Amino acid sequence: MGKKKQKTKLRKRGLPPGTLVYTGDRDAHPAHVLTIAYNEIDYTEINGFDDAFLLQHKEFVRWIDVRGLTDTTLIEKIGHEFTIHPLALEDVLNTGQRAKLDEYENGLFFSLPNLRFDHDNLEIIAEQVSIFVGNRFVLSFQEDPDDTFAFIRNRCSESIGRLRKKSSDYLAYSLVDNIVDGYYLVLDDIENHLGQLEENLHTNGANPVSKARIFELKRVVNQLRQRLLPLRDAVTRFYRTDSELIDDANRLYLRDVVDHVAQLIDGVDNEREILAGIEALFHAEASNRLNHSMRLLTVISTIFIPLTFIVGIYGMNFDNMPELRQPNGYFIVLGIMGCLMVGMMAYFKVKKWL
Amino acid sequence: MGKKKQKTKLRKRGLPPGTLVYTGDRDAHPAHVLTIAYNEIDYTEINGFDDAFLLQHKEFVRWIDVRGLTDTTLIEKIGHEFTIHPLALEDVLNTGQRAKLDEYENGLFFSLPNLRFDHDNLEIIAEQVSIFVGNRFVLSFQEDPDDTFAFIRNRCSESIGRLRKKSSDYLAYSLVDNIVDGYYLVLDDIENHLGQLEENLHTNGANPVSKARIFELKRVVNQLRQRLLPLRDAVTRFYRTDSELIDDANRLYLRDVVDHVAQLIDGVDNEREILAGIEALFHAEASNRLNHSMRLLTVISTIFIPLTFIVGIYGMNFDNMPELRQPNGYFIVLGIMGCLMVGMMAYFKVKKWL
Amino acid sequence: MGKKKQKTKLRKRGLPPGTLVYTGDRDAHPAHVLTIAYNEIDYTEINGFDDAFLLQHKEFVRWIDVRGLTDTTLIEKIGHEFTIHPLALEDVLNTGQRAKLDEYENGLFFSLPNLRFDHDNLEIIAEQVSIFVGNRFVLSFQEDPDDTFAFIRNRCSESIGRLRKKSSDYLAYSLVDNIVDGYYLVLDDIENHLGQLEENLHTNGANPVSKARIFELKRVVNQLRQRLLPLRDAVTRFYRTDSELIDDANRLYLRDVVDHVAQLIDGVDNEREILAGIEALFHAEASNRLNHSMRLLTVISTIFIPLTFIVGIYGMNFDNMPELRQPNGYFIVLGIMGCLMVGMMAYFKVKKWL
Amino acid sequence: MGKKKQKTKLRKRGLPPGTLVYTGDRDAHPAHVLTIAYNEIDYTEINGFDDAFLLQHKEFVRWIDVRGLTDTTLIEKIGHEFTIHPLALEDVLNTGQRAKLDEYENGLFFSLPNLRFDHDNLEIIAEQVSIFVGNRFVLSFQEDPDDTFAFIRNRCSESIGRLRKKSSDYLAYSLVDNIVDGYYLVLDDIENHLGQLEENLHTNGANPVSKARIFELKRVVNQLRQRLLPLRDAVTRFYRTDSELIDDANRLYLRDVVDHVAQLIDGVDNEREILAGIEALFHAEASNRLNHSMRLLTVISTIFIPLTFIVGIYGMNFDNMPELRQPNGYFIVLGIMGCLMVGMMAYFKVKKWL
Amino acid sequence: MGKKKQKTKLRKRGLPPGTLVYTGDRDAHPAHVLTIAYNEIDYTEINGFDDAFLLQHKEFVRWIDVRGLTDTTLIEKIGHEFTIHPLALEDVLNTGQRAKLDEYENGLFFSLPNLRFDHDNLEIIAEQVSIFVGNRFVLSFQEDPDDTFAFIRNRCSESIGRLRKKSSDYLAYSLVDNIVDGYYLVLDDIENHLGQLEENLHTNGANPVSKARIFELKRVVNQLRQRLLPLRDAVTRFYRTDSELIDDANRLYLRDVVDHVAQLIDGVDNEREILAGIEALFHAEASNRLNHSMRLLTVISTIFIPLTFIVGIYGMNFDNMPELRQPNGYFIVLGIMGCLMVGMMAYFKVKKWL
Repeated sequence: MGKKKQKTKLRKRGLPPGTLVYTGDRDAHPAHVLTIAYNEIDYTEINGFDDAFLLQHKEFVRWIDVRGLTDTTLIEKIGHEFTIHPLALEDVLNTGQRAKLDEYENGLFFSLPNLRFDHDNLEIIAEQVSIFVGNRFVLSFQEDPDDTFAFIRNRCSESIGRLRKKSSDYLAYSLVDNIVDGYYLVLDDIENHLGQLEENLHTNGANPVSKARIFELKRVVNQLRQRLLPLRDAVTRFYRTDSELIDDANRLYLRDVVDHVAQLIDGVDNEREILAGIEALFHAEASNRLNHSMRLLTVISTIFIPLTFIVGIYGMNFDNMPELRQPNGYFIVLGIMGCLMVGMMAYFKVKKWL
Repeated sequence: MGKKKQKTKLRKRGLPPGTLVYTGDRDAHPAHVLTIAYNEIDYTEINGFDDAFLLQHKEFVRWIDVRGLTDTTLIEKIGHEFTIHPLALEDVLNTGQRAKLDEYENGLFFSLPNLRFDHDNLEIIAEQVSIFVGNRFVLSFQEDPDDTFAFIRNRCSESIGRLRKKSSDYLAYSLVDNIVDGYYLVLDDIENHLGQLEENLHTNGANPVSKARIFELKRVVNQLRQRLLPLRDAVTRFYRTDSELIDDANRLYLRDVVDHVAQLIDGVDNEREILAGIEALFHAEASNRLNHSMRLLTVISTIFIPLTFIVGIYGMNFDNMPELRQPNGYFIVLGIMGCLMVGMMAYFKVKKWL
Repeated sequence: MGKKKQKTKLRKRGLPPGTLVYTGDRDAHPAHVLTIAYNEIDYTEINGFDDAFLLQHKEFVRWIDVRGLTDTTLIEKIGHEFTIHPLALEDVLNTGQRAKLDEYENGLFFSLPNLRFDHDNLEIIAEQVSIFVGNRFVLSFQEDPDDTFAFIRNRCSESIGRLRKKSSDYLAYSLVDNIVDGYYLVLDDIENHLGQLEENLHTNGANPVSKARIFELKRVVNQLRQRLLPLRDAVTRFYRTDSELIDDANRLYLRDVVDHVAQLIDGVDNEREILAGIEALFHAEASNRLNHSMRLLTVISTIFIPLTFIVGIYGMNFDNMPELRQPNGYFIVLGIMGCLMVGMMAYFKVKKWL
Repeated sequence: MGKKKQKTKLRKRGLPPGTLVYTGDRDAHPAHVLTIAYNEIDYTEINGFDDAFLLQHKEFVRWIDVRGLTDTTLIEKIGHEFTIHPLALEDVLNTGQRAKLDEYENGLFFSLPNLRFDHDNLEIIAEQVSIFVGNRFVLSFQEDPDDTFAFIRNRCSESIGRLRKKSSDYLAYSLVDNIVDGYYLVLDDIENHLGQLEENLHTNGANPVSKARIFELKRVVNQLRQRLLPLRDAVTRFYRTDSELIDDANRLYLRDVVDHVAQLIDGVDNEREILAGIEALFHAEASNRLNHSMRLLTVISTIFIPLTFIVGIYGMNFDNMPELRQPNGYFIVLGIMGCLMVGMMAYFKVKKWL
Repeated sequence: MGKKKQKTKLRKRGLPPGTLVYTGDRDAHPAHVLTIAYNEIDYTEINGFDDAFLLQHKEFVRWIDVRGLTDTTLIEKIGHEFTIHPLALEDVLNTGQRAKLDEYENGLFFSLPNLRFDHDNLEIIAEQVSIFVGNRFVLSFQEDPDDTFAFIRNRCSESIGRLRKKSSDYLAYSLVDNIVDGYYLVLDDIENHLGQLEENLHTNGANPVSKARIFELKRVVNQLRQRLLPLRDAVTRFYRTDSELIDDANRLYLRDVVDHVAQLIDGVDNEREILAGIEALFHAEASNRLNHSMRLLTVISTIFIPLTFIVGIYGMNFDNMPELRQPNGYFIVLGIMGCLMVGMMAYFKVKKWL
């Protein structure tokens, strides 16, 4: 996240605020725009952005769904049509931001990341989604060309659920709820990796592979947490805003999203605890192995070093060493050493070192 | 917890909010419903859900006790009868949630986990209990078929205590209080395990079994804590709600529940401290054993390695080694080595290494 | 604390709230009751609880001092006489609670532990003291038979200080202040033990006795802290309550108690820091000793193992080993080894390993 | 930071508050002053400070840009001209302060550090910038002679963006925004160093150079964080002030700065997490190497010490050692030792020690 | 701090609150009193406390500066003269307290420690200063006889700065500001010690002296922090009090003190970070040395233990050992061992163990 943002800032320094520069991957995807107008009775959907169509459906709820942010002039045009504040438009293009809710005179600007989990690189991939909800209109902007909101559009066109009976605030809620639902998938993916990690630890013990995995997962979980904390603030402010755009009956739905985010944070905290537990186990096992290895070394050394000293004595070449001349000297020394060895092993056995 | 919830979310993605899908163990238990109506004078209890019976007892406090959540149409019917908001019904079925209190226009929705401790797996088992309290009615939903509220029903039918003299809010309080009381049992169970662990440590010293136990208990205690923190918020909001449903005289009882939850959290924190202490002791003992083993190794090596060098000298085969020819050479060398050994042992004794 | 409380809860489950069961040590002490009535002019004190006496002194400040909680019927009778809420009476008997202030319609219920330090077991012993202050009456309940409030009673009967000139709120303040003063003794006792511990560490170095002591003191300090944190809340709420029972002029005294508790918490935090420092020193010394022992081992091994190899060479029995035949071979080898030994010792001296 | 400030305080002790003493590097740079007056139509810029010019442009927005703080009489003169409170002037000269916003009767005083990253010494270099915004005037004071605000002045003279259409509050915002933008560069620089560090760790493993680098970067990141936390408070208070100087339409821009600072803090926290991860990896690798080295030592010792004992036995010089006389004795002993060696190596292979 | 306080409490238990007992070093210094009266025009200063003088200067700002607290009757007399609340007088004598601001009906009581740094014992020495500011009078009480406020008195008598033009609140501010300024000196002293410590570490590496120093400085820094945190609260409440005694124009000066304390806390936190960094470096170096020593041991053992085994083989006395009879056997074995040695050293070189 940091990197993109900073590169942007470099490019933009010296420009006045509100200047529209897309700060993501420039030559990515051409913008794809869908304009939808609906009310309880009717539903129309056209490709592209069309002033006339909007004028014609002034009494409908209008939803402009923009996918891909490269066409800044188009975005400026949309912004102009709905008199969006330049700072909000700047935020649309300034990707890599933390989730936030900004209130403007004519609407609410909600920005949050849409998360996916990249299993191959153990990475969270974030695409910024910006939603501007005004009086009977919603603008949604995504970085990527994926049709994230197909579910919603389908529910709307088929008139499933309450969507068609409600105004723009409920549509905005539906979009946010849809993205937050996607976070559960990411949490679940991480949990699966955690499960694999624990299993791997049980089967193979502490090995470098699982150690690296612990660190990677810690980073991912921390990233997810850093995404969720500002989201909680933003969603709570969405729920509590005294803007007239939000129908009181719909606040219950927003409260539900607040609950979901709180639950996600609980889940992340739980995963952090689990990871901390695994890490502690890992350290304990490593220190255990060191202890075992040191104990083996000590036992072997303590037994054999004195014995080697004894045999060294009788390997000396003094002329006058009476023991060497005794017929049973060798066997007596062997016996003494055998006793010593058995005694020390018994001692270590009692001390539970063996 | 996480897992169940996430699986649900997967299944539900794309459905509009408020759709009723049970997210727990599907083919678990058939729903068992008990309908109770009482006032200060009368008490009637029937099996199943019966519109006519409810209509007939409109002036009574009515309590529908549902055990098992598989029959979603029944739950929808009950919800419809009492005009429960769809989001509340969704929360009833969406098990594995954190404790919460949601206020609706016609009542309060309280959801909290009913905890049991599984001694065999050292695990906390949570069943979600949802309570909806409205004007002269209470709906309670449990996942499991256990008759958790038998005590309360008994007190109600026998008219013990204040229950029959009070309205639905007091009944709801009684249900919540009953479940919170169960938390003390879990805390007590964990404390017993902690006691066993400490005893085991004193008798057997740091061993792998108790190490594994420490980690398991830490996880359990953290889980319990993660359950209690949102419960404190929910109960506090229950106590402080300005809903007209709560009689001011009954707030004192809710405050009592708040106190209990605070006390439970104190207890959990205490157990965390104890576990941290045990863990620190464990680490200290492990490092102590390493120290002991290294010191033994050092002492043995420091004494015998130089001596072995000396005997090695006199094991050399040079033609001209005058000492070897001296009649007492052997005994002099033995004497010198004996002195060296005694000296070094004295040195280590003074240094408290032995 | 935990244990007692939980046992209680087990015994009580299924009983309606407000049922009076003493949860402490059942066959402990018979209750001892003292009834006092005073105003600025008069002071009367009788043994036992007497309705007539109370009726007669209705215009006086009346203080019922109950020591020992086994006689629940007596406590119920007192509660009935002053129309105390059943939950407050339950809290009186439900010992082992955290400090709290509960406001009732006719008075304030203050519960806090009276602490003593058991030097032999390094333990904090807590006795619950409950104080109910109403309009011109104060009820105080203690678990133990010690005459904790003798000082206060004396000051009252001798008319020392402002006590006789003030109403029940000042009496309640005096009782609380008296108990909080006792906390300083506990803090001081712990500090003395800390001082002994530090001295012991300086004289004897890190030894197992002081290690065990560190862990015991940490536990005690944490317990004290866990007692103080809820007490701060309770005392602050006592000071800030808008109850008409508290004369504004007396709030200054309550503020003083708040200051004392804050100071006690500062003191406990200070002791925690000191203990953490001692523990860190302890670890540092342990790791230092390990380092020393490893270095000695390394020096001895590095010097003598190569030398032993050399003497081993000349202990081989090859027929053709020219060095062995040279007349000065032995002395040359001895000289070389001597140089090696001196060289390596010099090297280790320079490296500060010796 | 600390040092400069403290030196100052030493110099100033005994002087009344509000005395103007520059606390930075005295003989640094001579002050350079630029006086600008502009409105929507006109823009004039002169060198130096000129009362007449200011009087003449009373209806314009006037901006005095002072670079270098050595000329205290000039600063006093400017302060007198705009009736700046002596404490504000003292703060201008008292460099090395934390970011703050102080409200005065006739304006707002904003002070924040302008940060640069010194790559050679891995250090953050801070220059204090003070901004006083009053009714239609802005005073800006920098320590260094760099023309930090050239961008802004350019935008103003060329009438790019909204600057010329707005009043002094927007100018102040632009200055603050410009400096905060510079923080992204510092964050980016640190991130680059982090990247190099990680790469270095992957290529060369844990080495002393990267260890030193970790500690240096931790210090830098902590410094940056300590700069940002008070800045967040100051900027938030700037955004929330109810001063009439701030036009409500411009608050949106200030909110944007608040967002940027929050994002910077997120970025810093992220870097802290990364550093903690690297440090943990570092420790893990170090302990891993110790483990490896101990295991090698143990394996070698466990294999060869017993074997050396055996050869020592047959090196003894007893007269009667039957084995020595057997023709195949030597080969049998060699064979037994070979088997032992192979057996132990197999054992260690199975145990994964080799 | 704790000790003094606790000793006091012991002595005082059983006395009613508000009893005046000096809790510091009893036979320390006789009290020294200075009475000052001034207004914009006049300044008079007399030794001792004189009712008549005070009566005569009723319209002046009167400042009683008491140094040494042993004469409790004098303090009681002063307290009586200005109708100071007994609790405030008790706090004056009850030394060793945390900083606090208490509001009384006729004035504000501010108590804060005056700090000095004892370089020899690396200790912070605190003297309690109590300031009571009422309508046109200030009472200041110090424990020690040092003339701490000479600067202020001088500024007052010489009419430097605003002091003479302002009322008692500005005088109280000046006293507090003067003491807080002294904290910078302590912070600076600690910083100097930190600098020496770092230098010592760079020159001599991790040695026991610097380890002890780290722990001492940590304790000192923590003590300073524990002094500053309550001071921040007290000063903030001084700044925010709605007492009529504080002239709104003077609040700006109090805000300045709040800023200073915040800056001091920043400085202390910075020092804590630095100390934590040094400690981490220290640990890293210690573990590094252990690693080095283990590696040397391992290398020496791994090279020479097998070689010693080989020479042991040819030191055996078997009759039939063909190698021994070969004329070049000795040289071949020497050659093989030489190769082994070179090979292993090359291996360790490659592995970077040498």
